[in-house]
Amino acid sequence: MAKPASKLVIVTEKVLLKKIAKIIDAAGATGYTAVDAGGQGSRNVRSTGHPSVSDHYSNVKIEVLTESRDMAMKISDEIAAKFFDDYSGIAYICEAEVLSAHKFCGPDGC
Amino acid sequence: MAKPASKLVIVTEKVLLKKIAKIIDAAGATGYTAVDAGGQGSRNVRSTGHPSVSDHYSNVKIEVLTESRDMAMKISDEIAAKFFDDYSGIAYICEAEVLSAHKFCGPDGC
Amino acid sequence: MAKPASKLVIVTEKVLLKKIAKIIDAAGATGYTAVDAGGQGSRNVRSTGHPSVSDHYSNVKIEVLTESRDMAMKISDEIAAKFFDDYSGIAYICEAEVLSAHKFCGPDGC
Repeated sequence: MAKPASKLVIVTEKVLLKKIAKIIDAAGATGYTAVDAGGQGSRNVRSTGHPSVSDHYSNVKIEVLTESRDMAMKISDEIAAKFFDDYSGIAYICEAEVLSAHKFCGPDGC
Repeated sequence: MAKPASKLVIVTEKVLLKKIAKIIDAAGATGYTAVDAGGQGSRNVRSTGHPSVSDHYSNVKIEVLTESRDMAMKISDEIAAKFFDDYSGIAYICEAEVLSAHKFCGPDGC
Repeated sequence: MAKPASKLVIVTEKVLLKKIAKIIDAAGATGYTAVDAGGQGSRNVRSTGHPSVSDHYSNVKIEVLTESRDMAMKISDEIAAKFFDDYSGIAYICEAEVLSAHKFCGPDGC
């Protein structure tokens, strides 16, 4: 009973997690996963003014399974518009299939 | 020498990690990766009765590269049947290609 | 304005992170994300001689979005040739689409 889904991945500064969680929730997604992350991006300097060093896990990687590509794009657009001028960040999607979940609705229903 | 693979991802409560690792091993997968995770799911309340707050990294995200989609489905089905009535959890697959590994067998052999 | 990309994922021993970051940078990728990881691989014994136990988060999972499959293969080949005889490791790719980023170039330009 696999259901197609778009997995939206956002990697950005950890300080934004709560604000992004609200955007995800408001868009109607059923949940998200957050993981501490380090790394280096194209800016190489964070909003704090400190260089981004891979030993500092001050980024967060947020993953959201959305029932449609449109929902993923909508969440991504809002996050980019609100935060990506001032904070480091990237958003991308991958195709996925949900196999088992308590509540996950795909294009064909729940 | 890329080999097609199915990447099975399971996000669930951390307390289940050892039991799930045994199911993965018994299914014949060559390994798995586990990462601490926080987040919020459709239940919003964990098996402990505490609300799921994104600051608590008490979830785990487990990734398994399987040589066939069947193996991924079998592992997912067993985990869902055993745990997902009582614990928060979701399982999904993404298509991947293994480029380099010590030992990884695809549909065309090792 | 989604741009196709290959997501290269490398799971290996944490001690290699800085050396791998240099290879990624030299290949021209715009950045990478690193996450602490545990797990178990086909070797079951790490280069330290200690068994790989899932409670030890002494592995790292590194993700790189590359503008072409060739760049992902080149990075993977170099890492495998340099390290995978002596260290545990796996490299695989997934297809992705970059939705928003400060600087990310796809096959069709930036």
